[in-house]
Amino acid sequence: MSGASPPGRPGTVYLVGAGPGDPRLLTVRAAELIRAAAILAVDDLVPPAIVELAPRTAEIIRVGRRRGAPIHRHVVHAEVIERARAGHDVVRLKGGDPSVFGRVGEEMEALAQAGIPFEVIPGVTAAAAAAAAACVPLTDRRHASAVTFVTGHTMPTPAAGAPGTLVLYMTSARLAANLEALLTLGWPGSTPAAYVASATLPRQRVVSGTLTDLAARVAAADAAPADPAVLLVGEVVLVREHVRQLMTIVKRRSGWPAGNRPVSAT
Amino acid sequence: MSGASPPGRPGTVYLVGAGPGDPRLLTVRAAELIRAAAILAVDDLVPPAIVELAPRTAEIIRVGRRRGAPIHRHVVHAEVIERARAGHDVVRLKGGDPSVFGRVGEEMEALAQAGIPFEVIPGVTAAAAAAAAACVPLTDRRHASAVTFVTGHTMPTPAAGAPGTLVLYMTSARLAANLEALLTLGWPGSTPAAYVASATLPRQRVVSGTLTDLAARVAAADAAPADPAVLLVGEVVLVREHVRQLMTIVKRRSGWPAGNRPVSAT
Repeated sequence: MSGASPPGRPGTVYLVGAGPGDPRLLTVRAAELIRAAAILAVDDLVPPAIVELAPRTAEIIRVGRRRGAPIHRHVVHAEVIERARAGHDVVRLKGGDPSVFGRVGEEMEALAQAGIPFEVIPGVTAAAAAAAAACVPLTDRRHASAVTFVTGHTMPTPAAGAPGTLVLYMTSARLAANLEALLTLGWPGSTPAAYVASATLPRQRVVSGTLTDLAARVAAADAAPADPAVLLVGEVVLVREHVRQLMTIVKRRSGWPAGNRPVSAT
Repeated sequence: MSGASPPGRPGTVYLVGAGPGDPRLLTVRAAELIRAAAILAVDDLVPPAIVELAPRTAEIIRVGRRRGAPIHRHVVHAEVIERARAGHDVVRLKGGDPSVFGRVGEEMEALAQAGIPFEVIPGVTAAAAAAAAACVPLTDRRHASAVTFVTGHTMPTPAAGAPGTLVLYMTSARLAANLEALLTLGWPGSTPAAYVASATLPRQRVVSGTLTDLAARVAAADAAPADPAVLLVGEVVLVREHVRQLMTIVKRRSGWPAGNRPVSAT
């Protein structure tokens, strides 16, 4: 900060959840902010179709988790703070919901420290999108009265004590290791599980099985391990199987395609 | 079903998450479906400002959780199935996200059983909205690598083994009993906790403290127990305190209101 002249009033940084990928699953508020943005700072996980909603004249700053880079770097990109200090509003787009595995805590602290006002706009988190896409409720009074989110990025140790349904974020290429880890942590091999890749996007894939056989099933289904994916684990996955059975019976009887439409396409 | 003539092709039921309450936190897809709806079936938790987005000519069916009624009744309202069987599309609006404490599992099965196609549209869940409103990340690599959602509607027994951050849904009037239960289940009384009522709505209130003193603080703050509320429990609540301290320092130094704008208003 220059001591020569008093700094002007800073701009606001909007920490915005971009949702699971489909632009129609942005919140109305997020879509409005993006459409009006002069400066957009985006994570690599945010798909082009969302970034393209910004005006052609908008400056696009690429920040955060580049593949292979340590995830703790660039918590708040220096360029974002610099633009805000110069009086510009910045729309900071983060995949999913900012408060779930989005490092928003450190960003809020860094912005408050820098004297920059901010606002957090919640979004649809990956677990909710995967659940909707796969016909798997995250909670269900017959199967699970709780749901726990952990990340598959590292050893999912907290999963050992998780009650009810378990959701592993960022599993993708680590699926086999994650499944192995859950077995080591004491989860029974017969536990139902569903792998959901690219939920809500055209290349969405859902593969279900058990902790024991899911890795082989995913490999057989050729579900691309490079796509972002979550793993849903627990008895609630049985709801998907039940719904699909009912769909098959109804289709045979009536000729109408019944049940969840995105799922029947996978 | 009448055996006299073959049934016509049924309409689709859209099981739509209405988000936390602010109409701008609907997804774009949810807003489009509501604006085009001829038949809207809504839970009592969905605020009027969202229902009013529907066309004036739309039929509004009130379903689900009326205050005081057992929550297991009317899983799928007979009127919804009847309209869909007659060939009409129905937009079924549920508070928050349908897959989190929304009984969507039973609804999907009932619809599949009835031969009615459906689609689940995920929404912003209450925990994400409360986290954004209160400057509390649900996960944070310095404090918690997992988050568990349970309901405060009954004894939150699964909370005993929950790793990381805990979110109690539907706590409101049961706050004191829920806090007492967490202490009984072994959570230390010094655990930081935040009570967030009516997140994203104009009457939003955030009160923070510890498991020991939060009930008294909420009572002192006169935060209306009739409003929908969630309880955020764990070290992540310290991020809120830190951000607020930084905001106070910056405001004193610069005169600008810094930090999270909705929070500074509460």
